Amino acid sequence: MESPNSGGASGHPSGPAGPVDEFDAIARLRERFEATARLRAPGGTVPPVGDTWIGDDAAVVGLRSGERAVVATDLVVAGVHVDPDLSGPEDIGYKALMVAVSDLAAMGVRPEYALASVAGPPGTDLEGLGAGLAEAAGETACVIVGGDLASSPVLVLSTAVFGVAEPGEPAPLLRSGARPGDRLFVTGALGRSAAGLRVLRTAGSDRRQQPSDLELARAHRRPVARLAEGEAARRSGASAAIDLSDGLVADLVHLAEASGVGVALDAVPVAAGATRDEALAGGEDYELLIATGAPDDLMAAFRVAGLVAPLPIGWCTDHPGQHLLDGGPLPPGGWRHRF
Amino acid sequence: MESPNSGGASGHPSGPAGPVDEFDAIARLRERFEATARLRAPGGTVPPVGDTWIGDDAAVVGLRSGERAVVATDLVVAGVHVDPDLSGPEDIGYKALMVAVSDLAAMGVRPEYALASVAGPPGTDLEGLGAGLAEAAGETACVIVGGDLASSPVLVLSTAVFGVAEPGEPAPLLRSGARPGDRLFVTGALGRSAAGLRVLRTAGSDRRQQPSDLELARAHRRPVARLAEGEAARRSGASAAIDLSDGLVADLVHLAEASGVGVALDAVPVAAGATRDEALAGGEDYELLIATGAPDDLMAAFRVAGLVAPLPIGWCTDHPGQHLLDGGPLPPGGWRHRF
Repeated sequence: MESPNSGGASGHPSGPAGPVDEFDAIARLRERFEATARLRAPGGTVPPVGDTWIGDDAAVVGLRSGERAVVATDLVVAGVHVDPDLSGPEDIGYKALMVAVSDLAAMGVRPEYALASVAGPPGTDLEGLGAGLAEAAGETACVIVGGDLASSPVLVLSTAVFGVAEPGEPAPLLRSGARPGDRLFVTGALGRSAAGLRVLRTAGSDRRQQPSDLELARAHRRPVARLAEGEAARRSGASAAIDLSDGLVADLVHLAEASGVGVALDAVPVAAGATRDEALAGGEDYELLIATGAPDDLMAAFRVAGLVAPLPIGWCTDHPGQHLLDGGPLPPGGWRHRF
Repeated sequence: MESPNSGGASGHPSGPAGPVDEFDAIARLRERFEATARLRAPGGTVPPVGDTWIGDDAAVVGLRSGERAVVATDLVVAGVHVDPDLSGPEDIGYKALMVAVSDLAAMGVRPEYALASVAGPPGTDLEGLGAGLAEAAGETACVIVGGDLASSPVLVLSTAVFGVAEPGEPAPLLRSGARPGDRLFVTGALGRSAAGLRVLRTAGSDRRQQPSDLELARAHRRPVARLAEGEAARRSGASAAIDLSDGLVADLVHLAEASGVGVALDAVPVAAGATRDEALAGGEDYELLIATGAPDDLMAAFRVAGLVAPLPIGWCTDHPGQHLLDGGPLPPGGWRHRF
């Protein structure tokens, strides 16, 4: 449940200056919240916590029936994650739900229910936001069952999504499951969201709009969670996955660190109209990064599901902490909120 | 999943002026989101939606196993729901989780898991907020399994909680289940939170602090969800319940309207140190309002569970729209967010 974000591409290029790093803060909260689980009496009626916790895209929790619920939540803050001058209310509502759904896609699990809350100032276009939320819910077969509304000086959307992994099914994909030798794939060419944001920002200038510009702008405003791809990866026996919200470099490092492996890339699929930097560090593409020890099975699962073949980008190594691109060090990249 | 709120008692006495009423907005969103459920193919693999929807304290959703998950979510916005000058970060974190847990208490269901998200400006005391969240989680045996952190110009906390009602157990208590003739009870004397806020606001003045003032201040800063009371009510066969977040008058009307009944009160239990107005309209007490056709069973269930006896306040009538107090009209009261 990382923060999806605009990769510094939305009006706060390097985040508000603050002393506390987002991921450090998450690590400390994780420690504190884990202690709450230990307060539970052993042998009590509460089911054991599943194998993931804060720090993965979603949390897996055991239900008494043996099912596992997979839950994820995301915040979208106007001026931080989205620029209301460049995205309409429908876009913002759509994106707010889709980025949480994308967390489930990274686990290979489909959403069933969602909660959607909106805090906003007078004049907030609840109709538009609601229309966007409903559109994303409809496209992902996810039912919005509740939420909360509140007045607030700034627009903040909070969404939570729930899916279920049934007993006997392949387990949800964690970001910690990659092993040395695994091949790495992405589900599509990268950099479209960052390129779309660039196009939107220069739309007022002399620059001529190309038909492809509209497509890039749409990629920024309306990211699509790769649900079918995540499910195919899970069923194919892939070992790990993460959604590319923070950018390829940042999320690759997240996966590598969680798995205790190194990574070596030999290809960066750059989307038409995007730059290589945008592909590496732009973020918000919401393509999936998949690690698998059975690449042929992954390719076959995508083929059977009628999906575009995943793109190979490299492999995992047994050198934790070593992250290579074409033999050299991986460039820095990625957004962190600061407090 | 109403907005819990400070009953206009937290710096925005009548809410920011805006043309759209919170409950009207919820009704329209409900319509829109219900349409997303209809998009699902009949006979698909997605379980049917449970019997509640947006508009109750929590939503009840069916899982494939036959279990029912009960989910609720709440926003807490600094300056709207809480005054950071009067409540510390630990208080705010504690309250943010507790008010969502209170929504489950109103359904008679205990929480199992929670998601907790924080959006805040540089300098946000994540440690303090986290400590308060963890304290509330510990007290309610609820495990925080994830969340999100984001930078934001204003502090906003969003929490979501999940409980499970097993097949064969009495169904979760809805606010729509009250019937004419049902007796109405509350789980404790009212107005403590509003009185506590008043005490906190005058603490700097000449007024001498009484020991009871500390208790009232604590009631405001640290509301406690009535989980055992809600569970006892559900198991006793009560017909409806709601948590008193918006104030007795407002929430009584919510329950009456959802159930299609009228209400007649003949008692308002005013907490020591609170005024009758605070008891009627102050809000944020998080006591439960319970309707039951079997008051003796309710009293017995509370006694067996070792709980303080619920306080009778009146009954439900077959005159929908007629809300009486001591034979006269119920005074107005309650907070609505405006957009």
